[in-house]
Amino acid sequence: MIILFGIFIRYNEESDTHWIEHKTSNNISSNIENDFYFRYPSFQDVHVMIFVGFGFLMTFLKRYSFGAVGFNFLIAGFGLQWALLMQGWFHSLDPMDGKIKIGVESMINADFCVASCLIAYGAVLGKVSPVQLMVMTLFGVTLYAVEEYIILSLIHARDAGGSMVIHTFGAYYGLSISWMLYRPNLDQSKHRIGSVYHSDVFAMIGTLFLWMFWPSFNSAISDHGDGQHRAAINTYLSLAATVLTSIAISSLSQKTGKLDMVHIQNATLAGGVAVGTAAEFMLMPYGSLIVGFCCGIISTLGYIYITPFMEKYLKIHDTCGIHNLHAMPGVIGGIVGAITAAAASKDVYGTEGLANTFDFMGKWKDMMPTQQGGHQAAGLCVALCFGIGGGIIVGCILRLPIWGDAPDNSCFDDDIYWEGDFLVFQ
Amino acid sequence: MIILFGIFIRYNEESDTHWIEHKTSNNISSNIENDFYFRYPSFQDVHVMIFVGFGFLMTFLKRYSFGAVGFNFLIAGFGLQWALLMQGWFHSLDPMDGKIKIGVESMINADFCVASCLIAYGAVLGKVSPVQLMVMTLFGVTLYAVEEYIILSLIHARDAGGSMVIHTFGAYYGLSISWMLYRPNLDQSKHRIGSVYHSDVFAMIGTLFLWMFWPSFNSAISDHGDGQHRAAINTYLSLAATVLTSIAISSLSQKTGKLDMVHIQNATLAGGVAVGTAAEFMLMPYGSLIVGFCCGIISTLGYIYITPFMEKYLKIHDTCGIHNLHAMPGVIGGIVGAITAAAASKDVYGTEGLANTFDFMGKWKDMMPTQQGGHQAAGLCVALCFGIGGGIIVGCILRLPIWGDAPDNSCFDDDIYWEGDFLVFQ
Amino acid sequence: MIILFGIFIRYNEESDTHWIEHKTSNNISSNIENDFYFRYPSFQDVHVMIFVGFGFLMTFLKRYSFGAVGFNFLIAGFGLQWALLMQGWFHSLDPMDGKIKIGVESMINADFCVASCLIAYGAVLGKVSPVQLMVMTLFGVTLYAVEEYIILSLIHARDAGGSMVIHTFGAYYGLSISWMLYRPNLDQSKHRIGSVYHSDVFAMIGTLFLWMFWPSFNSAISDHGDGQHRAAINTYLSLAATVLTSIAISSLSQKTGKLDMVHIQNATLAGGVAVGTAAEFMLMPYGSLIVGFCCGIISTLGYIYITPFMEKYLKIHDTCGIHNLHAMPGVIGGIVGAITAAAASKDVYGTEGLANTFDFMGKWKDMMPTQQGGHQAAGLCVALCFGIGGGIIVGCILRLPIWGDAPDNSCFDDDIYWEGDFLVFQ
Repeated sequence: MIILFGIFIRYNEESDTHWIEHKTSNNISSNIENDFYFRYPSFQDVHVMIFVGFGFLMTFLKRYSFGAVGFNFLIAGFGLQWALLMQGWFHSLDPMDGKIKIGVESMINADFCVASCLIAYGAVLGKVSPVQLMVMTLFGVTLYAVEEYIILSLIHARDAGGSMVIHTFGAYYGLSISWMLYRPNLDQSKHRIGSVYHSDVFAMIGTLFLWMFWPSFNSAISDHGDGQHRAAINTYLSLAATVLTSIAISSLSQKTGKLDMVHIQNATLAGGVAVGTAAEFMLMPYGSLIVGFCCGIISTLGYIYITPFMEKYLKIHDTCGIHNLHAMPGVIGGIVGAITAAAASKDVYGTEGLANTFDFMGKWKDMMPTQQGGHQAAGLCVALCFGIGGGIIVGCILRLPIWGDAPDNSCFDDDIYWEGDFLVFQ
Repeated sequence: MIILFGIFIRYNEESDTHWIEHKTSNNISSNIENDFYFRYPSFQDVHVMIFVGFGFLMTFLKRYSFGAVGFNFLIAGFGLQWALLMQGWFHSLDPMDGKIKIGVESMINADFCVASCLIAYGAVLGKVSPVQLMVMTLFGVTLYAVEEYIILSLIHARDAGGSMVIHTFGAYYGLSISWMLYRPNLDQSKHRIGSVYHSDVFAMIGTLFLWMFWPSFNSAISDHGDGQHRAAINTYLSLAATVLTSIAISSLSQKTGKLDMVHIQNATLAGGVAVGTAAEFMLMPYGSLIVGFCCGIISTLGYIYITPFMEKYLKIHDTCGIHNLHAMPGVIGGIVGAITAAAASKDVYGTEGLANTFDFMGKWKDMMPTQQGGHQAAGLCVALCFGIGGGIIVGCILRLPIWGDAPDNSCFDDDIYWEGDFLVFQ
Repeated sequence: MIILFGIFIRYNEESDTHWIEHKTSNNISSNIENDFYFRYPSFQDVHVMIFVGFGFLMTFLKRYSFGAVGFNFLIAGFGLQWALLMQGWFHSLDPMDGKIKIGVESMINADFCVASCLIAYGAVLGKVSPVQLMVMTLFGVTLYAVEEYIILSLIHARDAGGSMVIHTFGAYYGLSISWMLYRPNLDQSKHRIGSVYHSDVFAMIGTLFLWMFWPSFNSAISDHGDGQHRAAINTYLSLAATVLTSIAISSLSQKTGKLDMVHIQNATLAGGVAVGTAAEFMLMPYGSLIVGFCCGIISTLGYIYITPFMEKYLKIHDTCGIHNLHAMPGVIGGIVGAITAAAASKDVYGTEGLANTFDFMGKWKDMMPTQQGGHQAAGLCVALCFGIGGGIIVGCILRLPIWGDAPDNSCFDDDIYWEGDFLVFQ
């Protein structure tokens, strides 16, 4: 990795010391013109989501908290470096000297890329070894970089918050791997699939940090100015609506009217996933509420009906229920994005606003909103194909008996990978 | 909610795609002129305070951590949407088309509004049902919007950090409701009013996130430039002083000299409440220390003497001690604000600085600082009246036997509202 | 404290109401020129590291979580105020009126100063009384202010992330105190030196918040524009590399290949320490990876071999292993900084960039990079001398039998300083 970085990676012009000369010669009057100040606060928020958000969200299992937060850390630390290389190859290769130029936007994109691998980790949590996770991340990051390039650059779909690129891809990648690695005798570890009181409170730390910083996630790489502003508002509204509906459905679905902590931890986040693609469009505040409202219902019902169904009949065991939190809302998000794009008009966006929002510039100058809707739909298909196809291939590789995965009776147990004695409280 | 948003709520001009045209035609050279970049980092900090800060601060009870963090989430998710409607009605109604225009400042204000309802929740924590909380939030947000409009717009009091508008109102609203809902037989649940080791550590997460981000809370809607800067410094200093005095008083108040975790969790925050109104004024660094110093003493003594007194003689049971953390410091904050405003002079503030800080513009152009002091005091009275009056009325409504509240022997117990078996560690 | 603040401390010109007049007369067109907006998001991130990061990192002991997070809070609250006075004396004394002028940069510097005292606390965690901690902080802050002035101003070394000024000084200060306070009979409390399952998860909260916000720590007081940008990128890369190597070494060092939570909690952070000085230089992305790679190895091996060695033969008991996390990486960081500075050339930095990065201005106008390298090395020596010398003197003072420290059989036990009964799980 060091060698690869030595050969390929350099600072971009804004993080280089020549910036000061560049600034003077271009008559840029203020340091604030440096992209850094527009992006850095959002970068830190996204960073918190990746490490604390995903890490703690997965601590809910009674005896797998170390694995949740520790292996999440491992995947992210490794994935970030690999993502800078892979994404840089497509995004920010400087044709002048053949070097990849990195800056704050590269760091955000690397975090996004890692997010898709962490989503995939949710499906196989507790059932794979750290080495398998490294392999999964290596291929996942590579596939992500290719898929992202195809969707955003070749197809020219827009996907600010990554409903398609991150969530749909990541979730189907993980689910396909979990399908390939299906363990018929997982019943032997069944008594450890469950939470204890305090592990559920730890998981709420993850939920809340994801929930709170999601507006930053969806707006982090939008256009400066109105785009970021609008993306933050839409995400904020969608998430607020999801909280209400998922709590309501959780209560209604039980005879006793009691709430289920699993739904509160997960389904409340579905609105953020589903509004990802359309967040920077003129979705309108009520549009965001509708998206959040529907996703809260679908995601909660998914936990109640679809996850058990998938395990029983499709032989896909999904530890964290990423199908309900990322896969379905991600697909919905792609569809909402396509519809919103297709329905865009100069009346609503203004002439310049339309070109600016959908980036109808350069070779895409004459594109129409309806065409853009088609491109969005094509992007969603690409994400699905890469997720499912890539997951099946990588899953096959991971079935090789060389990776040191846990036996069926030691799944969901920190004991086999961590030092110490585990007197976990009931 | 969706219908109401559909009819009334639109993006404001800075989050609208027309921003790019507006920008060009007004010769605004940089994207940074968008208010978003001044406010958004503070918004995220406030957001963390609302969800993680308030949520985890209330997890201290041994068997009510789910209710603390889960119902906090429910109140906030619901309250945010309602607050955007209610506050928008007063704040940002566009007379041209009768729509409410929302942007990043609306989101901060909605978070502030929700904060007052979460403060009120602290008084009744563990004793009410989720449905009662929804009703309490519905009325609380509505009352808040009216009260805020009267104090800030009609009376023209200044209240950057909301000592009066948020804390005084919210605390007396909650205490009045708790008074109306007094349960004479609460002794039956007495054994659950207390913490266990790890629940206290969870509560410290809440304390620290509130403490750390309070400078952002008090400066979030101040004037750009020096106002935000000064508000952050004053809050930082006041809170630092409070930590010292509350720890000292906690130790001195015990014969053994031991510290009480309840004081560390709560009283250390009182300085942030009390400096709220005056934070953007020229309170001077030593002034902030004095405010923090006094509030640390008063708040800690409140936990030791006043809370038991109120429960025994006034029949007000205050689960989290919000009287000590929000009510008393809030009133002190209002008084400090009135005095600081009345004592303002052109020598200290400069001519333009005085007009800018107190917003002596438009119809308030000829206002004197002494008058402003009177208006501040009037604002405090309005907050008290709305809090106590509103709380009594809403408390009466909540006494109706239709809301499904817990019986006296099941208070402070997650078991009745949450799925799962609760083998909580001692 | 209030009196001292009353006499000496005032707002600086950017946080003063006269800012608005100053702005107009100097033709500053935008509020964003206020330094506040460049620094405040980083300030909040650093603030989180100080309170949540350090506080929770130390909660790993099974019965000392209250002391970890509570006394951390006490030290920080007290230290901040004292640091504003002490540092202000050297940094921001206005010769016109003899007042110290504070602003957002003073708050960041005070947080940095407190960080060095909290590092020192790591060495003596569980073995000293709160009063001893206050004394230690009082002297620590004073020594820090002098040492920082000598290194940064007199010697003109650069130290953006404080590898020398903060980490080397703080760690040797703490280790020297721990050496002076060596307890031969500490075995009596040995059974409490260890973690339980959930205390380790709490400690991971600290680890992750330190890890995530370290890029802000190292870039917080760098030059606006490219300096901050570069510092963030270098730190991000170095930390990512450290995660991988420390996890790998942790696994390789055990016969069973299992991971040790202590290494994950601590050694993963060493890269952030070691890249501190050189973060704002043109270290190059691969340089950051090399630094992180090496520090992950050294720090993890330190936990395995050096800490037990120091305890047994040097009679230095180091509760949190700060020698591995701060002392060694800090010294490495100083050396890396010296080498990078000495190797700087106009080819890489550009003429203006070189002068800007190393601040070759005013009386240092004719300085050469090689000279700068020497100055960096001199700075490292000063930090070591102040740390070791100061620690020995303060350690002697703390040996006086008047400070109420715990008997040998009550170390690492919250019971003696905190109210409540401590039925800690296992």
